[in-house]
Amino acid sequence: MAKEKKLVEAITSMNDDFAQWYTDVVKKAELCDYSCVKGCMVIKPYGYAIWENIQAELDRRFKATGVQNVAMPLFIPESLLQKESDHVEGFAPEAAWVTMGGSNPLTEKLCVRPTSETLFCDFYSRDIHSYRDLPRLYNQWCSVVRWEKETRPFLRTREFLWQEGHTAHATAQEAEERTEMMLNLYADFCEEYLAIPVVRGRKTDKEKFAGAEATYTIEALMHDGKALQSGTSHNFGDGFAKAFDVTFTDKDNTIKNVFQTSWGMTTRIIGALIMVHGDDSGLVLPPAIAPTQVMVIPIAAHKPGVLDKAYEMKAELAKKFRAAIDDSDKGPGFKFAEAEMRGIPVRIECGPKDLEANQAVIVRRDTREKIVVSLDELSAKVEEVLALMQKEMLERAKQHREEHTYTALTYDEFVDTIANKPGFVKAMWCGEQACEDKIKEETTATSRCMPFAQETLSDTCVCCGKKAKAMVYWGKAY
Amino acid sequence: MAKEKKLVEAITSMNDDFAQWYTDVVKKAELCDYSCVKGCMVIKPYGYAIWENIQAELDRRFKATGVQNVAMPLFIPESLLQKESDHVEGFAPEAAWVTMGGSNPLTEKLCVRPTSETLFCDFYSRDIHSYRDLPRLYNQWCSVVRWEKETRPFLRTREFLWQEGHTAHATAQEAEERTEMMLNLYADFCEEYLAIPVVRGRKTDKEKFAGAEATYTIEALMHDGKALQSGTSHNFGDGFAKAFDVTFTDKDNTIKNVFQTSWGMTTRIIGALIMVHGDDSGLVLPPAIAPTQVMVIPIAAHKPGVLDKAYEMKAELAKKFRAAIDDSDKGPGFKFAEAEMRGIPVRIECGPKDLEANQAVIVRRDTREKIVVSLDELSAKVEEVLALMQKEMLERAKQHREEHTYTALTYDEFVDTIANKPGFVKAMWCGEQACEDKIKEETTATSRCMPFAQETLSDTCVCCGKKAKAMVYWGKAY
Repeated sequence: MAKEKKLVEAITSMNDDFAQWYTDVVKKAELCDYSCVKGCMVIKPYGYAIWENIQAELDRRFKATGVQNVAMPLFIPESLLQKESDHVEGFAPEAAWVTMGGSNPLTEKLCVRPTSETLFCDFYSRDIHSYRDLPRLYNQWCSVVRWEKETRPFLRTREFLWQEGHTAHATAQEAEERTEMMLNLYADFCEEYLAIPVVRGRKTDKEKFAGAEATYTIEALMHDGKALQSGTSHNFGDGFAKAFDVTFTDKDNTIKNVFQTSWGMTTRIIGALIMVHGDDSGLVLPPAIAPTQVMVIPIAAHKPGVLDKAYEMKAELAKKFRAAIDDSDKGPGFKFAEAEMRGIPVRIECGPKDLEANQAVIVRRDTREKIVVSLDELSAKVEEVLALMQKEMLERAKQHREEHTYTALTYDEFVDTIANKPGFVKAMWCGEQACEDKIKEETTATSRCMPFAQETLSDTCVCCGKKAKAMVYWGKAY
Repeated sequence: MAKEKKLVEAITSMNDDFAQWYTDVVKKAELCDYSCVKGCMVIKPYGYAIWENIQAELDRRFKATGVQNVAMPLFIPESLLQKESDHVEGFAPEAAWVTMGGSNPLTEKLCVRPTSETLFCDFYSRDIHSYRDLPRLYNQWCSVVRWEKETRPFLRTREFLWQEGHTAHATAQEAEERTEMMLNLYADFCEEYLAIPVVRGRKTDKEKFAGAEATYTIEALMHDGKALQSGTSHNFGDGFAKAFDVTFTDKDNTIKNVFQTSWGMTTRIIGALIMVHGDDSGLVLPPAIAPTQVMVIPIAAHKPGVLDKAYEMKAELAKKFRAAIDDSDKGPGFKFAEAEMRGIPVRIECGPKDLEANQAVIVRRDTREKIVVSLDELSAKVEEVLALMQKEMLERAKQHREEHTYTALTYDEFVDTIANKPGFVKAMWCGEQACEDKIKEETTATSRCMPFAQETLSDTCVCCGKKAKAMVYWGKAY
């Protein structure tokens, strides 16, 4: 059992040191690794397989709303980046610049895209002529670069993978509808597919995207009580269109600016998967997203018939599920620990005695419940267990969030809650950035969002006591 | 009919000016567009949809051989790029360099990856320990950057999309087998899926990949008689492993270097699709790759019942094919021309008289054959026509290649053929680079490959008359 112990012992307990636990899981579950480029990661096969499943499902949902994929250049000329003043202010400080092509200095330096609003605007300015060309509903899957100082795998890296959707519309209302549609698409995806409950809301002006009129966000609560911004959707109004001269001839034969949106979700969401569902044995993956949903583990595989039966079960299960078999020469305990570390939703244990009784044992990763099942009903039972697990993981995460969402009516209460109770704090706000700044400085908490589901907790701002304009979710964030 | 004429007239005939015809098709079929970044293109929805189909099918074939996807960083530190001397010599002259991160100069400049052998080697040097870790069969889908001076859409751009596979093996033989397996995978994909016949062979040392022991290639012949390198597979032996110290402990407990391969296919193949199959009406897409396989075009759509029936046909066809309907308010002639420009394999014409007779007309894009079919047999007939078209497109391309493949036994004959007969020229070669250099200088033709299917045309080199070592396919190339 020495090997088994070693695998398990190597993980820090999440209650002892959550940050170290996170790093351990990322490493031991073989999701990603450090690279020779500071702040950039290598996404390993298992991490990338999760990303591929996220991509496939998001892409399917995008396309169902009429979105088409395209590819824009990797580079943005400096002069193009500068066309919208808020935008360049937001992104220039963390831009990576190409200044040499071959052995020659470039006449104009090129920014490695941190986001592609400017490229889409430039393209749309040539591509859109008439109302017949609208809406344009484009998306691209790519990587972007932001020269961050502090980095953590998946959560904050100098390069990360994402999708960025960019749309152009004839009216402000259509753009607003699309902005909300995509936010809700992200939220539904997180809840239905990743079993991550999210708060849907609007960012304050201080926290909104550089150049946007309004930024909507989904905020998830991690196991340690910190918030993670998990997807954003921006309404640009016609601000970018004016800066980039994106116009169209409308039905009434007048020339108008288009109204635009953009929206994105990144590999950061894999960080959320780890920190919402994981435990001290490693990753716990919701069945819908798991690259392997069922792992068959033969016990005493050298005994006659065991391995054959295990292969047979695997083949049967593979008709309905993403199933695999661990037929390596490692011991069963090691195999169990490895399957747990990788968060595989269910494992099937099957040894000589089970075979005699025509049964196997299903073990759920999240609850560790063991279910003895007749081999005749294996596939049906696995289906039932996976569906139940998907549902209960979301419920558990919701319950955790509810237990860690607090209300503060006074500033003392607010400061005390932030300091002592990890989680979201709901509190009223006057709408002034001065209060956000003060709260951030004194408590390190930031406004996460003004939720669409507003409540009136009191009439006054929790910070300055003036008339309240909105209820805000506050929290410490990744 | 003014509009219809305009669409068709705008294309240059391929016999008048093949290069301009190519540019016209790329533009009019809305595959891609120029961007504000010199030498970089925007891939538009229709072009990207073709790429997505290529990706899906290649990815499926890769995974069937055990390949796993990963993501490596976008950047290569200068010192890492320099570790293998042939490799850096090959790629440094066209590298793009990041020298600034935020407002600070970097201590070491970073190359935007032109290819990722160095990054994979660096990763493998930490990731591979034992023979149990081998083989490693990794691939990534991404874009790469090469600072080309002359660019053309899809064929040669400063940034292009591709996949790059990088494998590590315990033995030289396994690496060689993988190199050949992937070349054959590319060749089969081109023939079965893109209806592009290819010559499979080995590059001469002059033409091989920087740092490779052997480069295998598939070479396709375009309609104008020029060759296009369409996919390559490289065997590195243990050269990179020695330069990057990629080692493993073998079964016999000794430490050895791994043997490596890499292989890639790019968006360039879309250029081949255009230039192998296209005609003076635009693109012609093989059914297997076409984003839309069947376009239903109602005639006299204002007449009662026509549009309803067309929707019904579309819904029925969509069960088996990628089907669409053109229900826009354009005239039928314009719709035909547009569907032809986009290379949609078959269109279904259906007007009031057809409905009365319970029939429709299937029109093949490649032959323009019109097939009247009973509505009851529409789906079955479309299936038959698409299968036949896929088969005949490959046969036609093969025939074109055979008609444009020549043999030269003397140097005069060689020079004359290259100058006057666009196509491949088969000729014997002594193995010396001096002859390749002379031929290139005097005829602009290059050695495309030494085909696996060797023939002995004569005993002497077509250029110097010395003893011949191999038969080579020569040609002018894109």
